Parts: sequence; structure tokens; C-alpha cells
Amino acid sequence: MKYPQVINDLIESFKKLPGIGEKTAERLALFTLNLDQEVLDVFSTSLKEVKKRVKRCNRCNYLSEQELCVICQENATRDNRTICVVEDVKIVTLFEKMGGYHGLYHVLDGLISPLDGINPEDINLESLLERIRKENIKEVIIAVKPSIEGETTARYISKILEGMDVVVSKIAHGVPIGIDMEYIDSLTLEMALEDRKSVA
Amino acid sequence: MKYPQVINDLIESFKKLPGIGEKTAERLALFTLNLDQEVLDVFSTSLKEVKKRVKRCNRCNYLSEQELCVICQENATRDNRTICVVEDVKIVTLFEKMGGYHGLYHVLDGLISPLDGINPEDINLESLLERIRKENIKEVIIAVKPSIEGETTARYISKILEGMDVVVSKIAHGVPIGIDMEYIDSLTLEMALEDRKSVA
Repeated sequence: MKYPQVINDLIESFKKLPGIGEKTAERLALFTLNLDQEVLDVFSTSLKEVKKRVKRCNRCNYLSEQELCVICQENATRDNRTICVVEDVKIVTLFEKMGGYHGLYHVLDGLISPLDGINPEDINLESLLERIRKENIKEVIIAVKPSIEGETTARYISKILEGMDVVVSKIAHGVPIGIDMEYIDSLTLEMALEDRKSVA
Repeated sequence: MKYPQVINDLIESFKKLPGIGEKTAERLALFTLNLDQEVLDVFSTSLKEVKKRVKRCNRCNYLSEQELCVICQENATRDNRTICVVEDVKIVTLFEKMGGYHGLYHVLDGLISPLDGINPEDINLESLLERIRKENIKEVIIAVKPSIEGETTARYISKILEGMDVVVSKIAHGVPIGIDMEYIDSLTLEMALEDRKSVA
């Protein structure tokens, strides 16, 4: 491409991001010329430092710039007896946006998937056990996606927690709000039917 | 959002780019954690420097880090008697990728659009006239999109070039290759019909 080198570098950089192909990368790279220098400076500095500054929380494995993440630091206002187990840091944000949950989290590094070579010892489960023992946890809520890997992980967790003084639950799966019934896949419908509740 | 500050900064930065909303920005910002530090460094430096390094070519107004852009610097291998007038730097790349054009370019700063307050004097036409006078140009090919603004601009150019020793042409509009006829809009079909060629 006959762009100045710095534009070509930007195109290549944008292309390394997920879902951004040649055309979009070109459009984004050229668009940067329209941004204010201050905006570009913040963008530039953040990119340079993101990996150096962002670590994992020592306790729950969520993203953090300190030893403990912002959520674990909220100790006083949180229900410290409940842990919600999620597969990804993004799900923590989803719960926090929702706002109806006030317990702690435990972020796994993925889900158990023997076919992909991901075994229980690879996904940060050891530290979950340790937390339950040390932190006097009363309930573990498993909030993983309804898939084979999700089910496997949920069952594995509930199995290793057997005999410990902790309630293990799983978030409900079923028909989401605001969707036309006709677009629901059969598996979801089956789960919704199975988990039906009496209309009281 | 309860992300570390540097992640929030990245999300805000990505959101300033066209076509990138909240969700995508979040996904891209988190993805940067998976990139190598060297990749992030190149990305970061390019963003910081892009506006400082990229100027416009003094002759044709294409992007350039020097006085003259790479295309104008190719003088010896180019047809220096032909100028292709385009509305945007991206169109130059499109032509260069195609490879079948070997003349020079002249990049306008948009198209004439009185309704949007864009008048002939706003779109870098004065320097086109100057080039035609000084550079002994024989043909001006107008390659703007078939729209009201494109037509207005094309007619305006051809009008101001009247009486000068230069051929003014316009790229053909019609049915593009590889598309099902049924998806062609009426205006395109009308132009394709009007510009029909005898099958010889």
C-alpha cells in the first residue's frame, strides 16, 4: 500500500485486533488523523502500559492494578460469604452492571474442555477451594454458559465441593426476556421447560 | 465500569473510532492484554506520531511524510500528462491496488455541496487549475462517485477547464462486475443504459 509508513503501521496494528479486517483497519487508521492529539496521546499511553499495569487480583483473579481488585477492596459493603464463579473477566462487568449481586467473584481461566486439552488443574480451581476453606464461604454460585464445557465445569466444581459446608448453585438457563419465542433454539427451550416454576 | 483505569481509558479511546460502540470497545480493550508488548509498542508509537508525521503532498494533496508523496516521487515511471481527480485519499489507494492507472492524482478535500456549505473554493480546486497550467497536463480524469455532489463537482471542473488545452473525462458508471442484475438500483441501471456501447 502506498500510504506513509506510519499509516501502514497503524493498519497492521488494527488488523491484529479481533474482527478487524484489511478494509476496516484502513478506515480506522486514516480516521486517527481526524482525532485530537490529546486523544491520540491517551490512546497511545494506554496501549503502551496496559500489559504492564494490569495484573490479576490475588484473591479472585479479576483484572487489577493492585494486589486486590476494586471489587475485593469493597469488602465492607459486599456479602463476603458468597462467591460467584465466572469463566471470564467480562462476565464480572456484566454482573456489576446488572447491580443486583453484592457477593464476591472468582474468575476461572476458561472452562474444562478435555478435547481442547483444558483440564481442571488449568483453570484456577485450586484457589477457589482454598478460598472456600479460608474465607468461610457459605454459597458458591456457578455462572457459566450453558454448553458442554460449562456443564462439565459446573459438575466438576459441585463434585469437589461435596462434603464441604457450602451451598452450590447454578444460575438459571431458559428463555431470555424480550425475545420472540420462535427464535429460541431447542436446547434452550428444553432447559426452560425442565426448570419450569409453578405460577403462584 | 469496574475495570482498571488503563482499561477504561482504552475503552474510551476505541469508542472514539468510527463504527466502534461500547461492547466492541470493551472487547478490543481487553484483547490488547493478549497482544505482545512489541506489537503494543508499535501501535502506541504510531498513534502518538501519526498526526505529526503525516502531511499532505504539496503537489497532489495525497498523504505524505515528505514534501512530495510517494506517487509524485515516482515521476520517471508515471504518465505525467494525466491527472486523476479523486475526492478522498482512500480512492488513490483503490486505483493503485487496481494497478491499471499510471498517471498522477489530485486529491480534493471533498465534493461541492452547497447544502452542506461546501463551495468550489473549499475543496482544493485552485491548485488543480494551477497544476494544469504549470505541468502541461493533457487529460483530467474525474473519478468521483455518482451522486448529486459528484455530478456537481464534475460539471464544475469541466466548466472551469473550458478553453484550456486539456481533455476532461469522467470514469464510467454502470452495472458492476459480479453482481446479480436484480440487485441493481434504478439510477445505476439508467446510467448503464444511457452509456451503452455497441457490441462490436
